[in-house]
Amino acid sequence: MTREWTLSPDRCFDPEPTQRALARDLYASVVDLPIISPHGHVDPALLAAPHAMFGTAADLFIIPDHYVFRMLYSQGIALEDLGVPSRDGTAVEQDHRRIWQRFADHFHLFAGTPTGLWLSDELINVFGVTEKLSDTNAQAVYDHLEAQLARPAFTPRALWSRFGIEELCTTDPATSPLEHHVALREEGSEIRLRPTFRPDAVVALAAPNWRADIERLSVVSGIDIVDYASYIQAIETRRTFFKELGATATDHAALTPYTERLSSGEAAAIMQRALLGRQAPGDTTKFTAHMLIEFARMSAEDGLVMQLHVGSSRDYDRDLAARFGPDKGADIPIQTDWTNGLRALLNAHGADPRFRLILFTLDESTYSRELAPLAGFYPSVLLGPPWWFFDSVQGMNRFLDAVVETAGLYNLAGFNDDTRAYCSIPTRHDVWRRVSANWLAGRVARGLIDGEDAARLVQECAYGLAKRAYRLG
Amino acid sequence: MTREWTLSPDRCFDPEPTQRALARDLYASVVDLPIISPHGHVDPALLAAPHAMFGTAADLFIIPDHYVFRMLYSQGIALEDLGVPSRDGTAVEQDHRRIWQRFADHFHLFAGTPTGLWLSDELINVFGVTEKLSDTNAQAVYDHLEAQLARPAFTPRALWSRFGIEELCTTDPATSPLEHHVALREEGSEIRLRPTFRPDAVVALAAPNWRADIERLSVVSGIDIVDYASYIQAIETRRTFFKELGATATDHAALTPYTERLSSGEAAAIMQRALLGRQAPGDTTKFTAHMLIEFARMSAEDGLVMQLHVGSSRDYDRDLAARFGPDKGADIPIQTDWTNGLRALLNAHGADPRFRLILFTLDESTYSRELAPLAGFYPSVLLGPPWWFFDSVQGMNRFLDAVVETAGLYNLAGFNDDTRAYCSIPTRHDVWRRVSANWLAGRVARGLIDGEDAARLVQECAYGLAKRAYRLG
Amino acid sequence: MTREWTLSPDRCFDPEPTQRALARDLYASVVDLPIISPHGHVDPALLAAPHAMFGTAADLFIIPDHYVFRMLYSQGIALEDLGVPSRDGTAVEQDHRRIWQRFADHFHLFAGTPTGLWLSDELINVFGVTEKLSDTNAQAVYDHLEAQLARPAFTPRALWSRFGIEELCTTDPATSPLEHHVALREEGSEIRLRPTFRPDAVVALAAPNWRADIERLSVVSGIDIVDYASYIQAIETRRTFFKELGATATDHAALTPYTERLSSGEAAAIMQRALLGRQAPGDTTKFTAHMLIEFARMSAEDGLVMQLHVGSSRDYDRDLAARFGPDKGADIPIQTDWTNGLRALLNAHGADPRFRLILFTLDESTYSRELAPLAGFYPSVLLGPPWWFFDSVQGMNRFLDAVVETAGLYNLAGFNDDTRAYCSIPTRHDVWRRVSANWLAGRVARGLIDGEDAARLVQECAYGLAKRAYRLG
Repeated sequence: MTREWTLSPDRCFDPEPTQRALARDLYASVVDLPIISPHGHVDPALLAAPHAMFGTAADLFIIPDHYVFRMLYSQGIALEDLGVPSRDGTAVEQDHRRIWQRFADHFHLFAGTPTGLWLSDELINVFGVTEKLSDTNAQAVYDHLEAQLARPAFTPRALWSRFGIEELCTTDPATSPLEHHVALREEGSEIRLRPTFRPDAVVALAAPNWRADIERLSVVSGIDIVDYASYIQAIETRRTFFKELGATATDHAALTPYTERLSSGEAAAIMQRALLGRQAPGDTTKFTAHMLIEFARMSAEDGLVMQLHVGSSRDYDRDLAARFGPDKGADIPIQTDWTNGLRALLNAHGADPRFRLILFTLDESTYSRELAPLAGFYPSVLLGPPWWFFDSVQGMNRFLDAVVETAGLYNLAGFNDDTRAYCSIPTRHDVWRRVSANWLAGRVARGLIDGEDAARLVQECAYGLAKRAYRLG
Repeated sequence: MTREWTLSPDRCFDPEPTQRALARDLYASVVDLPIISPHGHVDPALLAAPHAMFGTAADLFIIPDHYVFRMLYSQGIALEDLGVPSRDGTAVEQDHRRIWQRFADHFHLFAGTPTGLWLSDELINVFGVTEKLSDTNAQAVYDHLEAQLARPAFTPRALWSRFGIEELCTTDPATSPLEHHVALREEGSEIRLRPTFRPDAVVALAAPNWRADIERLSVVSGIDIVDYASYIQAIETRRTFFKELGATATDHAALTPYTERLSSGEAAAIMQRALLGRQAPGDTTKFTAHMLIEFARMSAEDGLVMQLHVGSSRDYDRDLAARFGPDKGADIPIQTDWTNGLRALLNAHGADPRFRLILFTLDESTYSRELAPLAGFYPSVLLGPPWWFFDSVQGMNRFLDAVVETAGLYNLAGFNDDTRAYCSIPTRHDVWRRVSANWLAGRVARGLIDGEDAARLVQECAYGLAKRAYRLG
Repeated sequence: MTREWTLSPDRCFDPEPTQRALARDLYASVVDLPIISPHGHVDPALLAAPHAMFGTAADLFIIPDHYVFRMLYSQGIALEDLGVPSRDGTAVEQDHRRIWQRFADHFHLFAGTPTGLWLSDELINVFGVTEKLSDTNAQAVYDHLEAQLARPAFTPRALWSRFGIEELCTTDPATSPLEHHVALREEGSEIRLRPTFRPDAVVALAAPNWRADIERLSVVSGIDIVDYASYIQAIETRRTFFKELGATATDHAALTPYTERLSSGEAAAIMQRALLGRQAPGDTTKFTAHMLIEFARMSAEDGLVMQLHVGSSRDYDRDLAARFGPDKGADIPIQTDWTNGLRALLNAHGADPRFRLILFTLDESTYSRELAPLAGFYPSVLLGPPWWFFDSVQGMNRFLDAVVETAGLYNLAGFNDDTRAYCSIPTRHDVWRRVSANWLAGRVARGLIDGEDAARLVQECAYGLAKRAYRLG
């Protein structure tokens, strides 16, 4: 089969002609705007080394991307056979052409998924593949990609310009030396790569690596952590360091949004027990709940925007986690109670004009019930875009339908691609721009938003909301 | 800019021509029906005094309306600057022109929200404003509104006829002397204003005002409340008084729908402790749970329709509540468990043909999971319309999509505007009539409801369901 | 009124012409496929006796169908007046013409419901009724149905061929002798009727009939149940018997999906206490949680596909249950926590390639939050189709919208009709085929699935997914 592989220029738009025409016009007004990518997981090394390259097609599209391999795994393909590195010494496939073949053999599994749409857009529009990927053309496509990836035009830095990225924020442990961000700054590069302060590891008292992370935190901060006060001081020192390297935000993940202010005595006692390796039951939950409020206080003081990602039961499958480590597709969402959970934090800092809190959920039932009412009241609260599984056409439509009527559009934080797949950045933003243009077109076609407002709001969705929400420039 | 400000005559309708044509026809058949407003919060004084007026544009549109000022607050505008009266002596803006200017400066925040749609409809179609409200024309619009509000055609009573209101029910504390309702009756007015019995304050044992409310209840009922029996008797006496003044319903708000039948000894003991100011932990929860069943029993006996509004965590922000009091936009919904919560009440009274219970939720996930199955089984249960945040175009569409397939349309209670903003009554009913017409048109266009049924059902949605549900006439 | 009663040939399709044309084509490609009905509650006696008949129109459409009579009950019609048999000696209507008249008088209640659509399709397209059922033609329609039901063409066996059923699975207690399935096999019939192993009754330690069911299990298995080991052995013996008679699946209902592995000592002790009639608090919950994991183990070993239906609070109304028994429409869903609940089971068996688990929910908020992520990761997990209240046009649309983007289409188990109403089998499958064709058409019209994929996926939805999921041939 040699039919040309293309994507519809009207993809994501409603077929109804009135709405589609409006959507096309709105989309056309934002398609060329630069990309603001304020939250994601791109490896900074890709951009810090001037001549860094991507590796093979399997390195680029399959091996590091849990969106891709968890779908193959769900249909019976072992992670070993996809080259996913094991932690326990299990041998894994080393032949990247065979990995690619397995992926191509099962490419039909991605029909109707956002991953399928992104992969298609990348293959067609970034890499110039012209035939729909299948079992029969897998090796020919691999040849094509191999040739492309060897060209200077396909280095991460070359693509930076082609993609039109204005700002890209990475996510970095509190203990990171940020050597890549430092190198870029020293190079005087025009690449605007900002770190984001993510202290989860130094808060997770019960994690096996916590003690080691605290040692590292002591070293990089230059503050000997011997008690709660020095712990807080070390964290604040690191925030300053991140800010100096361009950070405008922090990021926090938690199983639940439960917050509770501990007395300073109680916080100190928990820290003391943790440092001595003698945690009491409930210490972790209480300490996490307390530290979220502490981080809110710090954000109010130093101006770093606080992001909170809640509700993933991570490493759900213990055997898989033991064999392959975290971020392997076995992260399953749970119900989230934002209203009761955030009450202590918001009563303490929610009305502070210096404070900004961006919320992300995996529980869509909270969009209209809790998140939109919170964002539609608290000056500090903005809603992050649909996260993870919901970074999809229908996910975005459901989000906009559920939150805008209550919170308005100005209480949203625009779009995040949240990706570790650098080449998927443009297509993810493109989907958001298309869906938001189409959603606004739908409101216009129903007489609920006028054309003048829609023209302004589509710009906000594509660019302005994210830039202001993250205090970028 | 002097472009004429208008609303689309096809607003809320799908753009697809077949469905739109059907929606127009269905809507045209109900647009002129009188308004049944069986639940809301209009101040009865507005209608009881023959020449009552609205005050300024800020008095009418901003200062008392938490839908409006919470959105402005969420974007950093202090309540003080919007003239919202404080309880703690904080000075607030007195200049209503400046308040109006701030509102106009931020009118874009309401794009895509139901509040924005209502405000636009009121300004355009009730008050004849011809230019879209903006920072530049704010004072000119204020001048126009000032002139209109001074005219006899814009008194509440004049608008009653213009709006085509057939029935309007207010919401009144159990202890209210209902002086405005009495006055209307004594005047022999044609204004059909009915009270609704709301006993929440006399049930909330732990509220600071409970004791004072009990004193008041003793006074107005003429029954000295000294124990549980006299308490119940006083409540029943008041229900009779409300009925005499035209009430056909009661209204109850609760954080959760938990119900539990206490033994008479246990109820008496809790009441005794409360009267002595010596509550035990759990008394409030148990007493509320018990009294909901008691109110169901009373409703079965006296025929007053019982309304139950559940799931708002009110006065969520303690500081704001202390400074400005209740109903200031800081009411955040929580998850609701109707199925387990109502079981005791429904097992006791759900099958009683004399009993009617109308349920309202802020947890949309319960529409299809709990509420529609309950309404589709129990003869007593009807579903109230989408409440509060969900009184919106998409909120109504989600509601109808989620409940009708399970409960059918005849287990709905039609529409409530639930408003304290008298001038928003027509536009709120209009949105419901448009959305329900369009929703039925969508079913017809998909061959799922026939034209004959749709013609009847659109009348039921606009008028019949509410009138019968509330036993009005 | 003598207007012809028909259903739109385009029912369930979007009115937008592009999508509708695509939907028509996709639907046309599957309309004649045979029916795979892998889960339902048809009485096997209907098919085992070569000349079995349906009885009256009331026997067929009303008396046994809780979808029908609970809607009538919700509007004040007593179950007694609909001929629903009582358990407590209450006299019930015996005149089937009067029952039919009451149903016809209230046929308008079903407008917009799936029950209404199925009933209409059955009356028109199975039984040739030509006038819309109403109070005035009720008796004439009854006459017509009486004549049809007396004809050889309207026996269950005759309809089997007309309906194009390829596979039909019943649901049978673990203790059933499966006499009808045995009879069919002995007859050498071409009717492919398979049993499904449903052991709920022998797991429910606290049920009043549990002891009797265990006696029966001992008898039919030939294993004297005296302890946990013999209990397990008896169950395994029965599974083998069911397999020999063609079973490919088991079915399990639970209030929650909570699973927990007990030590063999603990399981044995609980069983011992139960056999002695001395249950301890919590025994039932723990034992159910444990047995679900045991059933998963057995499924991995014997290859029977495990179905799990969770979240119905059955016999919610105690008085109704006492008077009329189970399955009378008073089953109300509750919130479900799949993620925490299934963790123990999935950690034990989720990655086993021999194991297959099909999940069914009544809590739509779990579709995107929990079920799609689980199915999109675990090789063993597939999602059952929208269940019970959600076996409806909008229910199916919400399901497909919520799960496909995350889980893909290949992690679905196709369609189940789950019906006890044999004559509703074709119309229920038809609705699914129409809705899935239209849903795919909507994806194609939006450029999100290409025509080639849609042509394959619509076949999968209508036939292939169910056949493979249930290991049928």
